[in-house]
Amino acid sequence: MNLPLSKIAEIAGGRLVGDGSVMIRGVARIEDAGEGDLSFLANAKYVRHLQKSPVSALIVPANLKLDSDLPVIVAENPYFAFMKVVSAFYPAKPPEPGVHPTAVVPDSVTLGKDVSIGALVSLGENCQVGDGSVLMAGVVAGHDVRIGKACLLYPNVSLREGVRLGDRVVLHNGVVVGSDGFGFTMEGGKYVKIPQVGTVVIEDDVEIGANTAIDRSLLGETRILQGAKIDNLVQIGHNCTVGRHTVISGQAGVSGSTHIGDYVRIGGQAGFAGHIKIGDRAAVGAQAGVSKDVPEGTMVSGYPAKPHREELRMEAAVRQLPQLLKEFKALQEKVRELEEKLRKSC
Amino acid sequence: MNLPLSKIAEIAGGRLVGDGSVMIRGVARIEDAGEGDLSFLANAKYVRHLQKSPVSALIVPANLKLDSDLPVIVAENPYFAFMKVVSAFYPAKPPEPGVHPTAVVPDSVTLGKDVSIGALVSLGENCQVGDGSVLMAGVVAGHDVRIGKACLLYPNVSLREGVRLGDRVVLHNGVVVGSDGFGFTMEGGKYVKIPQVGTVVIEDDVEIGANTAIDRSLLGETRILQGAKIDNLVQIGHNCTVGRHTVISGQAGVSGSTHIGDYVRIGGQAGFAGHIKIGDRAAVGAQAGVSKDVPEGTMVSGYPAKPHREELRMEAAVRQLPQLLKEFKALQEKVRELEEKLRKSC
Amino acid sequence: MNLPLSKIAEIAGGRLVGDGSVMIRGVARIEDAGEGDLSFLANAKYVRHLQKSPVSALIVPANLKLDSDLPVIVAENPYFAFMKVVSAFYPAKPPEPGVHPTAVVPDSVTLGKDVSIGALVSLGENCQVGDGSVLMAGVVAGHDVRIGKACLLYPNVSLREGVRLGDRVVLHNGVVVGSDGFGFTMEGGKYVKIPQVGTVVIEDDVEIGANTAIDRSLLGETRILQGAKIDNLVQIGHNCTVGRHTVISGQAGVSGSTHIGDYVRIGGQAGFAGHIKIGDRAAVGAQAGVSKDVPEGTMVSGYPAKPHREELRMEAAVRQLPQLLKEFKALQEKVRELEEKLRKSC
Repeated sequence: MNLPLSKIAEIAGGRLVGDGSVMIRGVARIEDAGEGDLSFLANAKYVRHLQKSPVSALIVPANLKLDSDLPVIVAENPYFAFMKVVSAFYPAKPPEPGVHPTAVVPDSVTLGKDVSIGALVSLGENCQVGDGSVLMAGVVAGHDVRIGKACLLYPNVSLREGVRLGDRVVLHNGVVVGSDGFGFTMEGGKYVKIPQVGTVVIEDDVEIGANTAIDRSLLGETRILQGAKIDNLVQIGHNCTVGRHTVISGQAGVSGSTHIGDYVRIGGQAGFAGHIKIGDRAAVGAQAGVSKDVPEGTMVSGYPAKPHREELRMEAAVRQLPQLLKEFKALQEKVRELEEKLRKSC
Repeated sequence: MNLPLSKIAEIAGGRLVGDGSVMIRGVARIEDAGEGDLSFLANAKYVRHLQKSPVSALIVPANLKLDSDLPVIVAENPYFAFMKVVSAFYPAKPPEPGVHPTAVVPDSVTLGKDVSIGALVSLGENCQVGDGSVLMAGVVAGHDVRIGKACLLYPNVSLREGVRLGDRVVLHNGVVVGSDGFGFTMEGGKYVKIPQVGTVVIEDDVEIGANTAIDRSLLGETRILQGAKIDNLVQIGHNCTVGRHTVISGQAGVSGSTHIGDYVRIGGQAGFAGHIKIGDRAAVGAQAGVSKDVPEGTMVSGYPAKPHREELRMEAAVRQLPQLLKEFKALQEKVRELEEKLRKSC
Repeated sequence: MNLPLSKIAEIAGGRLVGDGSVMIRGVARIEDAGEGDLSFLANAKYVRHLQKSPVSALIVPANLKLDSDLPVIVAENPYFAFMKVVSAFYPAKPPEPGVHPTAVVPDSVTLGKDVSIGALVSLGENCQVGDGSVLMAGVVAGHDVRIGKACLLYPNVSLREGVRLGDRVVLHNGVVVGSDGFGFTMEGGKYVKIPQVGTVVIEDDVEIGANTAIDRSLLGETRILQGAKIDNLVQIGHNCTVGRHTVISGQAGVSGSTHIGDYVRIGGQAGFAGHIKIGDRAAVGAQAGVSKDVPEGTMVSGYPAKPHREELRMEAAVRQLPQLLKEFKALQEKVRELEEKLRKSC
């Protein structure tokens, strides 16, 4: 593809500044960009790459100062603008509809229109797959699984019996949905399993990263609400809910029966105790250990997690501690001397 | 199913208090329960749901005070009682015995009675599968794997060559048993692999959660002892042992050659250095970083892990630190004034 | 196999001390070794096992003092020496070359010489597999994947479209290479996906542990450089680079666009923020939370990560804090008394 920058600006929905006739042949990272490439610059950290780059044009946010006369597309949300350009240069190519001859699809399965079932897929009895959904090679679903429309299941995803996916759900390689919750009770000196007879519901527009595991509920449902985005290697325990448009970064873990609100942002490797509630629009720092409810709109961090400002104040205080210990010894000494002096003099 | 509460009390092995003729049609979480449902209440946190719930009866522990005249089943271990009722309402339905035509089962494989081998399973040469075991779709085993009786292997479990499972072992989707230990030695400026020629033994009644990885030993065995329960996304390094009836929560990680005793309880995301020993009945807090031996019966937490009470005392002390810094400055000032006064006055 | 110790010393490339005619029939851990076994002793912690062991000979480093007259092989790098002996006793047995009849291999795929494609493998269009590479059961590759020579892909590895592996790459069970980076932008109250159209390049001699996920780049490449070794359940974000001969332990996680240098050593469960740079030969402690650049050759640890010595000094200071708080109260009291005395006396 080869398009003038003016056309690209239209696609991006941004404001063109500079020569719109420059021809753009691709998109690239600023570090890799060649002549004819459009790049993206939102983080001031990367401006230094500009000097030695033969890049032809940039998408930038309004507030980024550039010491350059390159033509640019200024966008309110440069990531969104860039996304639209990338999508134009790399249109998605869904696989051809059809069922691969090596796939195992019992007669009781219902497939919608334009469904693609890849090689070596195995579906259980009574599964339903909605229109336009794609199940790539090696996907396994137990019986009575319901998959909505336009879902994309990458290879080796595995769905336990009875789980339900909404529309446009994306599950990356190795995702497990509906594994048993971790429920045992000690009886007679050994653990006895509590059967996990609930299920998991994944609502519309949810995306879940590679090798993440979402446990089914003991009773009722574990539920991932609309538009939530979950990264790789995350663990969601039984009976949890993850709210609408909530983002959970890689390797975070949520213990059973914890409820996470809407628009929450969770950093990588954060951990959550069970039976707690995280309010809407809360933010949780990477590696935080959250053991209590977090009120709406609050940012917490650290171990155990506290309000972020408090955590920062404490970290700063701890950094002063070795010095404090020294000064404290000196002060003790001085007080001893004063005491001595006072005893002598008065 | 529809049973009078008196019958349910018998199944649960609990003491009926109230009207035993109430008909029960199902079990549900207290948040979701409708009329005719039996629910479960052990955590005082959930008592508030009771007011607005049409639930018909409850299983409760003896020590829970309820401000309600609902009929209840009082049980010493309410989780165990509830487990028995859930099992009655949802009897396990193992798949039909037989070998799916798409499974790859060499002639050298020995299958016991009533074994179920699912679609697209692949077994290596000389594998043995004991009576009543179930291998679901997509399970892969290398050569010479031995699987005991009544095991349940969920889809996409993968067992490396030579590993051995006892009886009634449950492995959830994506579990890997017998992957190479992480053993390299630096030689001539690059890492050279140390062949991992040992194996893994999983004893009877062990359950392992989704996408957990248990590495084989360099020599000898990595061993998970009888009745241990391991959650999702856990890493067990080479040459480790996990003791009998020990519980390891999600995303915990154990480095090589560490030995964990019996009846140990390990919180989520806890990490263990290699070559250490965790005594029987020890407890390790979530996210703890354990770098030294933990004596029998001790609870440790924090980073680096310390006795739990000490950790709590330190956390409390750190919380007072910003205030201490302020007061310290004030005290320094006061001592300076005293010094001045003393100098002048005496 | 049955060899005299003198011959074993040759294989190991070490110096024989003692009777070289002793016959060695196997290798074993010192805890398990029987008569005729050669064992390995590098960690002084394990010397205590020696007294009660019937082991016949040992490989030891020059600096280990043994109170024993066992014949030994002294080696500069005893791990390397041991590796060579283990390899002699347990020669690798690669599977027979050939394509299993259940594998799905389109005509457009190019296979090198002596390639082994296991049961139920699925390759996409235009894949290339180099000479001597082994793809075990259940491996899935998307279209246009390039696999070099002598690679070893364990069961259920999954490679997304377009990723490239060098020569002698080892991927353990459940590894995912090329999953989408976690890239979304908030627009109109919901997250919109930024297409991840880059790829992943894994260079020669890289080994990656079970269930680890390596995300593809938004644009350009995520790159794992030559000889890097990555353990189980690790997450590498989009656009990252991992340097040559760098070692990353289990469950560590690296956020997007972070660059890790050569010969870096990273402990288990360590976490890295995005867009930072870790210098060559740096070391990062287990569970460290790294939020800033780490200079070349530096060791960091703790949360947030600091130079290791500073972290140790702070940990020591925090341990003194409860005592400090007590002494501080006492000092405040004493100053109050002094003040009182001074007021009275002068």
